Parts: sequence; structure tokens; C-alpha cells
Amino acid sequence: MPELAAQLAGYRAPFPSSTKVYVAGSRPDIRVPFRQVNLSPTVDFYGQRVSNPPLILYDTTGPYTDPNAAIDLSKGLPPTRLLWVMERGDVEELESYSSSYRQLRERDANLDAIRFPSPRKPLRAKPGHRVTQIHYARKGIVTPEMEFAAIRENLGRPNGSHITPDFVRREVAEGRAVISANINHPEAEPMIIGRAFLVKINANIGNSAVASSIEEEVEKMAWSIRWGADTVMDLSTGPNIHETREWILRNSPVPIGTVPIYQALEKVDGRAEELNWEIFHDTLIEQCEQGVDYFTIHAGVRLAHIPLTASRTTGIVSRGGSILAKWCLAHHRENFLYTHFDEICELLAGYDVAFSLGDGLRPGSIADANDEAQFAELDTLGELTRRAWARDCQVFIEGPGHVPMHLIQENMDRQSKVCHGAPFYTLGPLTTDIAPGYDHITSAIGAAMIGWMGTAMLCYVTPKEHLGLPNKKDVKDGVIAYKIAAHAADLAKGHPGARAWDDAMSKARFEFRWNDQFNLAMDPETALTFHDATLPAGGAKSAHFCSMCGPRFCAMKITEEVREYASHKNLDTASAIEEGLKEKAKEFSKTGSEIYRQAQSID
Amino acid sequence: MPELAAQLAGYRAPFPSSTKVYVAGSRPDIRVPFRQVNLSPTVDFYGQRVSNPPLILYDTTGPYTDPNAAIDLSKGLPPTRLLWVMERGDVEELESYSSSYRQLRERDANLDAIRFPSPRKPLRAKPGHRVTQIHYARKGIVTPEMEFAAIRENLGRPNGSHITPDFVRREVAEGRAVISANINHPEAEPMIIGRAFLVKINANIGNSAVASSIEEEVEKMAWSIRWGADTVMDLSTGPNIHETREWILRNSPVPIGTVPIYQALEKVDGRAEELNWEIFHDTLIEQCEQGVDYFTIHAGVRLAHIPLTASRTTGIVSRGGSILAKWCLAHHRENFLYTHFDEICELLAGYDVAFSLGDGLRPGSIADANDEAQFAELDTLGELTRRAWARDCQVFIEGPGHVPMHLIQENMDRQSKVCHGAPFYTLGPLTTDIAPGYDHITSAIGAAMIGWMGTAMLCYVTPKEHLGLPNKKDVKDGVIAYKIAAHAADLAKGHPGARAWDDAMSKARFEFRWNDQFNLAMDPETALTFHDATLPAGGAKSAHFCSMCGPRFCAMKITEEVREYASHKNLDTASAIEEGLKEKAKEFSKTGSEIYRQAQSID
Repeated sequence: MPELAAQLAGYRAPFPSSTKVYVAGSRPDIRVPFRQVNLSPTVDFYGQRVSNPPLILYDTTGPYTDPNAAIDLSKGLPPTRLLWVMERGDVEELESYSSSYRQLRERDANLDAIRFPSPRKPLRAKPGHRVTQIHYARKGIVTPEMEFAAIRENLGRPNGSHITPDFVRREVAEGRAVISANINHPEAEPMIIGRAFLVKINANIGNSAVASSIEEEVEKMAWSIRWGADTVMDLSTGPNIHETREWILRNSPVPIGTVPIYQALEKVDGRAEELNWEIFHDTLIEQCEQGVDYFTIHAGVRLAHIPLTASRTTGIVSRGGSILAKWCLAHHRENFLYTHFDEICELLAGYDVAFSLGDGLRPGSIADANDEAQFAELDTLGELTRRAWARDCQVFIEGPGHVPMHLIQENMDRQSKVCHGAPFYTLGPLTTDIAPGYDHITSAIGAAMIGWMGTAMLCYVTPKEHLGLPNKKDVKDGVIAYKIAAHAADLAKGHPGARAWDDAMSKARFEFRWNDQFNLAMDPETALTFHDATLPAGGAKSAHFCSMCGPRFCAMKITEEVREYASHKNLDTASAIEEGLKEKAKEFSKTGSEIYRQAQSID
Repeated sequence: MPELAAQLAGYRAPFPSSTKVYVAGSRPDIRVPFRQVNLSPTVDFYGQRVSNPPLILYDTTGPYTDPNAAIDLSKGLPPTRLLWVMERGDVEELESYSSSYRQLRERDANLDAIRFPSPRKPLRAKPGHRVTQIHYARKGIVTPEMEFAAIRENLGRPNGSHITPDFVRREVAEGRAVISANINHPEAEPMIIGRAFLVKINANIGNSAVASSIEEEVEKMAWSIRWGADTVMDLSTGPNIHETREWILRNSPVPIGTVPIYQALEKVDGRAEELNWEIFHDTLIEQCEQGVDYFTIHAGVRLAHIPLTASRTTGIVSRGGSILAKWCLAHHRENFLYTHFDEICELLAGYDVAFSLGDGLRPGSIADANDEAQFAELDTLGELTRRAWARDCQVFIEGPGHVPMHLIQENMDRQSKVCHGAPFYTLGPLTTDIAPGYDHITSAIGAAMIGWMGTAMLCYVTPKEHLGLPNKKDVKDGVIAYKIAAHAADLAKGHPGARAWDDAMSKARFEFRWNDQFNLAMDPETALTFHDATLPAGGAKSAHFCSMCGPRFCAMKITEEVREYASHKNLDTASAIEEGLKEKAKEFSKTGSEIYRQAQSID
């Protein structure tokens, strides 16, 4: 895929004025990546230069932004976690892939052109073993994955934070957090999803019968993580799902989630009523051995819940939910994911694939928010959570959907209660139905709020929601909107370290360090482009004004004088009024009003 | 301005499938405009067509979208309120404009080319009269403006709602709502700002020394109201402020706000310390007689508050606040807006210009949110509110700024308490500092939340905030983000009628009425364009699928079957499980799985 390689090379560019840095753990192969943004010095009131410490940011981009990393997409990223998995001694390498579907695809020479050329052999737990992070956590073992996640959450701050490796272990052991890390996806950098940690975001990608190709999907994965996606779900429904996913997994440094029922449905030519446990089971094995890190499993769409949706404004809007509803209706039998749930648990525990218990009956409109169908399913998800935990599986819970602001808190409260503290993972929620084309915004509002309330991961919504498949621009717009929501939530939750980013930006803003403002922006390119649209001259980057106020007067510049004065005189605020201001008045009159020293050449 | 006229003609296009309708009041010249969106019929499970009632939407576009209106920008819009103002018998027409600055401009032949050619003579209250809506309201008079606003808030629903003309009167009398309507701006359609009403949004426009022209600003006004701006603030700081404003006012069907200190500063060549009461007073008269509907007055930036900002991360970020801070420091005297406040009240009461009491000390960063300086100023604004009310002036209160989510509620609560229920009008707030280029989103989150909590009007923030002057696209992006925030707040507040829009959209979505979805969208053009980006064929507009899932399976389509079935059988949810589903199972097997009747030709 030479074209793809060329495109990806573009994504490898480091962010401006940024350095990829690694923080070492207790062993040399624990190297936790961060993006270090290097800042220019402050020039104070007297012309003195005072250096600003670099800012350390959480980094989801993996090796792509490391100039020292050699990346060959056809070989995949280095399997950095492989040693950790192997040295635990509880997995075995299989001679061949177990899924009969995979075997069929491997024998098909027509697929040679699109097949990932260098797959590893699959790993699986040895008989009688469970290889999940929750299993180790419950046994008191701090895995390298847990230590990695702990260092990552601390954002490079010195130890002493409450986020120690053992804190991570306890949160995982209690089911309040998930480290989604399939033993067959050792390319991924461990991360943690839980309400005690930074709020994470997921980006959905995936082709459909109508549009999109393997190249585009791998590109979207790389593009999503460049802008901050913590996990990526591959929701492909079209042809070559298997091969597309292999390329994505082998080149993804973030956990990959899927909805296996989508692929199972492809295997029965889209006829939901022909689905059965055998086909679904083989699909799970296929994806477990490929390395998918979490599965959306709609086991909560029970037969008895379906009629509860009949009086809804928008019925069942989840694809997975509607497929299973159709199956249940066609056979008048209980959902086979529910009846086979314990078997699914046993399977997933052998690879450490986490459950993302799907909300197949989530509301698709404001009218349907928080209704009987939604909460009936949630109760079932709570029951399934306990069953999965009993088999050492990791679990998080999917949530809505479309919910007006005043009904959001109830979602968080009920989920937390009936699902026993398992992490919540919501799609938005969208706070109104009326703005197709802008649903990244309608939903970022709800996402920020529910993130603050305790939701651990936010599934992005792009501007194309309800209208079409997202393109590259839509993916970026969705990711950025959700990084904003997640960060706003981190701030509101008081996550230690989140505020440092805002403070660094605001200090740069106050001091007219324009390049630092661009470099610190969540999207440096857009910030720079927007600034230059009205003030393109190079000199404007050091100007003590911008195009909003023009050179005549600038709020920040005037304030700078107030502050420098008070600080110079070492006044407390009371004495400043009494003693300081009279002198200040004289000074102003004497020096005149010329404060725009640097601006003059541009005016 | 022939070019401008051509551009504006473009904005006159009615929205797709929409009709401008008017609801009559108690007298023939009360004609309240709405946009009626006409919907296509539902085609039910049996092929029967069932008509859908049209949806009535609040309409800020004025005569621009009325195909029967003749608009000549050089003549201005028809002064529909003029009769109402005159017949109250308490105003007099002046022979000439009173402001000496205006007289100077009128004598300058160099300005002929850019001068609005057909100004009216100015009106002013007769000596001893106050011509404000709050004055009438307190006397028990329901003005045509109040009745107009009441009908408008009811969104065309039949009477019997709690929003009666007398309810409007009481809210205005108590100061809980404002009808901002200068007697010299009779072109404006009355609207009401208060927590008991629909949440309003304001769009800022305005040129600066660096960029923009009169044409662009008039165009931005027309563009803002097309997308839903309820009021527009002209924040121009560059040359020809006076003439620009005249063009905007004469052609604006929405209230126009300004910050008079900006123009006053221009008159002293940007030297804040040279400002004085005489220049400012003349500027107020100039703008009162032009027809500005509300003034931001930074009378709360008291000398004693200024040192409270010294230890802030971003000091004073309000332009008006910093100008006055500089003046106070230079003279070591109390803010002249504060010392002359009662005179300002007497002046404004003679034209019915509302106070927008400015928050010159609002926080400009997350670090400075809810600090001593901010709340000290707010206390002063509460004092000034009472003083303005004592002189029959209408008042609303400006609020921040940059505030993390967990500190928003405190802003609303304190404002409500210390300002005695006067309407709150906030800039966002932005919930994080780190996303320049996306501050319409960082702030829409805060705006939606504070709107829900009771803020009456939200001042938009565009993507260019902190970076540059907004262009046309930025203005639209800002307005749409804020209409979303305001509508989400209306939904959460339970405003009667707000839900109807969501329900109409969701019903159209569920029934695959694609064109209705586009026509009902807040931005029909973008919704249609985005849809067509992946499925451009005309047939796709009637297809029971979209590019997201492809024709193979569609969640909504499957649900439609569940619902039609249950409804056909008239089952309640309990019996549906017991009796209905067995039969449904048979039916499914018999008819096969082919549900994509219309999709086949496209697949």
C-alpha cells in the first residue's frame, strides 16, 4: 500500500515545538510516551527573559510521532507488550488460527492483494487459565500494563500522586476501571478507562457497503489518534471486514473495539433471522485471535424488552439492537447472546477481550430518553456485569444516545447503581435532535456534562451523524469536539494535572506569546491558520495585540500594566488602593500613553 | 451600495419548504412573524398517506425572508413600531440631532459617499416623561410591544399558554425581563429577554482598524439573523463607526447593542486617560438618537476593584473594562460611568435604551473564574440595577467568560441573588482555555448549561475567538452553535413548544422522510450537503436507508416493523410478549427478510 504509506508519513510529523518523550517505569521496557510542548520565555515588564517549563501532554499518537521510530505498515508496529504477556507463563502460541472463517479467508488467493502480509501466530490462554487484567489485579499482581497506565495518567508529574500502580490495580480489581488489552494486540500502549482517571474518548471508523476502503480506514485510525482518540472502534459493515481489521490492528497503538454482530450478519448475507450461535461464536474467536480489545455485545436486548419500544418515537436506533430484535421476533426466542453469555465470558477471558455491554435499546430521540425500554435493558446489563466479573472478565457499559440536559444525571446515577460501579461509556448524549450537520456540538454538550458526572469514556459523534459516513475532516471535527468535552470534564472533576494545560495556555495568552498559544492549542494548525487569516505578517506573532482589537488598544496589554505595577510595588490589594494608585497616576501622565512598543512597526 | 444589495438578495431566499406566516394580535398592525416548515405526508406500513402538520418556528429574519416585502437598503426597513411609539403621546420629534459629534459628521462632505441617505428625524421623550417599557409595565399598560413579544414566545400555539401579554407585562414590570426597543429603532420587531422565556442569543459583529468595511458589517448583520441571532451587537472600533451603525440600524429587524466606550475612545485617538464625561455623554446621545437598543455600560469597574485583578492569570480581558481601568489608574479617580450613573439612567429613559451592565472584570481564563474581582464587580452591578430600576430603566447583566463546568452554577445563583432577578446575559462561558479555533464549542457547552440554569441571553463566541475577527463562515458557525445551546436549554427548562421541533425532526427521521429532515434542520443547507456527500442520488432521498449502514440493514427500518406490528395488533406491552410475538415469528418466516423494497434499485 504505497499510497497509504505516503499519506501516513504526513501524520508522522511531530506537532509544532513538541518533542516525543518517554517516562521510564520500574523496568526498562516500560516506556510511557508523552508529548512535551516546549515554550518560549516570558519577556517581563523590564525586558528580562524568564523561561517557561515545557508542558507535558497525554499522547495517543503512538510511534507515529516519534521521529526515531521506523514504521512499515506492512509489518505493523512493534509488539511492545508481547514480552509482558509471554513472561506471565499462562498463554500458548497456536500453530494456526482457530476460526473456520479465518481459515477460509486464508485459503482464498483472491484476497492476497489486500491481505496483511506478516501476521503473527495467535496466542490463547492455556487451558484452565484466565489472562485478564482483572484476574491479575484480584490476585494482587501489579502488571506492567497497570504501571504503564498509572504513569500515563500522572502526565509526567512526579510520583506521590494518588494514581499509583497499586491504585490502578485496585480500581481494576473492583471493576471500576478497565485496561482493555487483548494478548493478541501487543502493539497497543496500555491505557485505563474508569471514573477515577482522565476521561477518554473513542472514535468510530469503518467502511460500509456504500463507501470507503481499507486504505481509508487505516488512514482514519491514524488520523483519529493524531487528534487524540484513546480507542478506535472499527464498525465496518461492508466487504473485507476481516482484512481491514487486520491492517488496523497491526498498526494501531490504541485499543480497538468492534461490534462482532455486524460481521456475523455479513456472513449470513444480512438476514438477521439466519444468525445463530455457531456463526457468532466463530466470529468471536476470529476477532479474539486477531487482537480486538473490546467487543460491543448486545446481550441486554432481551425478548421481553422489545415490545417496550413499540410506542417510542424512534423505536430501536442501535444497529446491533435492531438486528437482535429482529432475530428475537423471527424466532420468538430469547436473544442468543443472553442465553450464551457465560460461554462468551469464558471465551473472552482466554484473550482478555473486554465487554462493552451494548445499549441496543438506547433512545434515538429526545422523546424517548430515559424510558422504560432503556432502563429495562440497563438493569439486564447490571446483571450481566456481575456474571462477567464472576468469570474474571473486564466490563464497561454503553449508554445513550439522545438525552436532554435535565435527564442526563439520572442516566449516570442509575448506571452507577445498577451496574455496580462498572465504567460508563456513552454516545454523546445529544442534547437536541434538531441540528443534523452539527451533532458533534449537540452531543459535546451532553458528553462534557456526563463526563463530569463520572462517565469514563465518551464515544464521539461526528458532524455527519444521521446523514452519512464521516470523511477525514468529520473524523477530526468529532475527535476535537470530544477532546474538548473530555478535558472540560477533567477540569470540572478536578483531575490533578488537567488544569496545567489551561494555565499554560492562558499564561501564554496573557503574555502575547502567540506561537506558544498556537503550539499549546488542541489543534495547532487551525489556531495558526485562523490567526493568520486576518494578521498574516510574521511580526504579528510577537505583537502585543491581535486583529480583534487592533493596535489601538488591547485589553490584555492594559492589564499587564496594572499587574506589573502591583507586583513591582509588592502591594497587597488593600494598600494598593490607598498608597499605590496615586503614584501610578503620576507615572501614567509622565510616560504618556504609549504602551504599544512592539505594535508600532505594524500599525 | 449596489454590491451589498446583490448580496443581501441572496439572504432573502426563503428557507426550503418554508413559508413566512404572520399571527395577528389584537390590532391589525400587530403581525408577528414565524417560519412555517411544511412537511410531507407519512406513508404508513400499508402505503396510506397521513399528512403531518406544519411546524411553526421562531423567526428572527425579519422582512428579509418575506417574498412580499420590498427591501431597499438605502431606505431602510419599514418603521413598523413608529405608530405605537407616537400614539403614546409622550415623545417629540427633534428638528435635528442633538449630538455635536453627529453634527460634525453631517457637515463633512467627505462622508457623503458612505452616509446612509435617508435618515429620519430623531425622537426623544417629552420633558418629564420616561418612555421605557418598564415604565408602562409598572403603570399596568400592556403595550403593543408586549403583546407582540407574548405571541412570539408562544410559537404560534393557541392562547391559553401562560405567556399572555399580561404575563409579559408583569415580568417587565418586575425587571425579570427586558424588551429592548429604542423609540428610534422602530424597524425592530419586539422580542423579550428573560428567564421565563425562550433563551435568546446575541451575535457580535463590528469592524476594527485592521479589517472589515461597512458593507461587510451590514452583511454580517443580515447573515447573523438569517441563522437565528436574536440581537446583534455592533462592536466596531475602526473608522466610520457612526456611519456603519446607521446602515446597520436602519436595516436591522432585531435589537442592536453597542459598547459606547469604544466609540468614545476613538474620539480621543485611543488615549484612555483623555476620556471624560462630556465626550462619553455626547456619544450616548449620538447613539440614543440613532436608535441603539441597548448599551454595555462598564460602570461596575470601580477603582477599588482594580487591584483585585493584579494576581490574576489573565488580568482584565474585557476591552471596556481595561479602558476604564486605565482611566481610573491614570486619574486615580472613581470610574466616571459609576459617578455619572444616575445621569446615564435619566438619559436612557428618554429613549428606552436598555442597560447591559458590563462585566469589565470577567475572568479571561479558567484560573480566574469566580474570583474576588469578578464577584466584587457583580455586587456593584446589583447596586446599579436598583438605581436603574428606580429611574424606570430596563437592565440586564453581563456575565462571564471562562468558567469550568463545576463553577457555572455559582455564577447563576449569585447573579440572580445580588442582581435581584434581572436577566443574565453571558459570554459562553468557555469551559476550557485550550482550544482556540474551537471556542464556539468550548463555550456552547457552558452556554447550554447556564441557559438551562436560567440565563436569559447567550452571547455567541465564534471559532475565531482569541485569534482574529470572524468572517461570514465564523459568524454562522457561532450563531448555529449558540442556537443549539439555547434550544438545548429551552428543552431542559421545559419551555412549552420547544420539544415540538425535536419531535417533528425525530418523527421525520424515523419515517425516512429525508427531505423533511433537511428542511427541519437548524441549517438545512449543511444537512442536505452532508447527506449528498455520500449518497447524492435523488432516489436516496426516499430510500429507507442511508450511507451509514448501507442498504443491507438499517436499524430504523427494522424498528419500524416492530412498531407497526404492535400498533396494528393494538397490543399493550405485556400482552405483546405473551400473544403477539409467536405470530410475528411466523410472519417473518413467511414473508422472508426482504424489507428494503425501495433500496433495491440503488444497492
